[in-house]
Amino acid sequence: MTIPDPVTLHLEDLAVGDHFRSGEHAIDVAQIKAFAGQFDPQPFHLDEEAARLTLFDGLAASGWHTAAITMRLLVTSGLPLSGGLIGAGVEIHWPQPTRPGDVLHVDSTVLGIVPSRSRPDRGIVTVESVTRNQRDEVVQRLVSKMVVMRRGD
Amino acid sequence: MTIPDPVTLHLEDLAVGDHFRSGEHAIDVAQIKAFAGQFDPQPFHLDEEAARLTLFDGLAASGWHTAAITMRLLVTSGLPLSGGLIGAGVEIHWPQPTRPGDVLHVDSTVLGIVPSRSRPDRGIVTVESVTRNQRDEVVQRLVSKMVVMRRGD
Repeated sequence: MTIPDPVTLHLEDLAVGDHFRSGEHAIDVAQIKAFAGQFDPQPFHLDEEAARLTLFDGLAASGWHTAAITMRLLVTSGLPLSGGLIGAGVEIHWPQPTRPGDVLHVDSTVLGIVPSRSRPDRGIVTVESVTRNQRDEVVQRLVSKMVVMRRGD
Repeated sequence: MTIPDPVTLHLEDLAVGDHFRSGEHAIDVAQIKAFAGQFDPQPFHLDEEAARLTLFDGLAASGWHTAAITMRLLVTSGLPLSGGLIGAGVEIHWPQPTRPGDVLHVDSTVLGIVPSRSRPDRGIVTVESVTRNQRDEVVQRLVSKMVVMRRGD
């Protein structure tokens, strides 16, 4: 099994305004239907014809699929935090749907850093991660509060 | 293909305080590793031994996996909204991890209903969906703003 290992940034390495750009992920009809069949079985995520009659006006990925792809991009290429990416809470907006053929990437910016008072070995880092398609249209805005460890002595 | 069809509640059928309880979903090691391998490939979601050395102290499901299972429960049994479940934005907290062997269900409560001024055929409904395990411990709190259609004439 391969586990990603380029996890290098500790709490004291981060500064507000730091920016990270992920690699890319191309999404297609098969991925959209497979995810939806398992986790979000609604007509506008499963069937092109049915989708045309809904608010989406055509097949669209589940927002949870966009979120999951965003996480994959962050873990594998987008945000090399020590100890991994451990979210305590998030806010997500989906201003427009992800469509078949979209090629997504994620731009992340550090918004805030708060050292823990009770646990001096860690802190909470707030990161905004904006997922864009190949036309630079925003398909998701994610703000995450993540636990980040300090470097050991 | 089967698409769920018990979608019956329109905007005017909902009231603040309405409650819906979903069916159940049992999660196991294989599901946790399969989801993580695809979307959240971090040691604490992929490998029992490695997970013991992390903040999680044992294998835990990705928070995005808990969110995806929650969505499946809402779509298939938890929240029968007309037009389907279409989220404009959400807030999520994961107060504790989902573990192998957990049996999850979702309790949803309508927190607010705001008819659209610009588009009289719809409104925005705010719903809190709390995902609990078989010991009634909360593994996820989700607050969703959803587009809900009015009944046609």
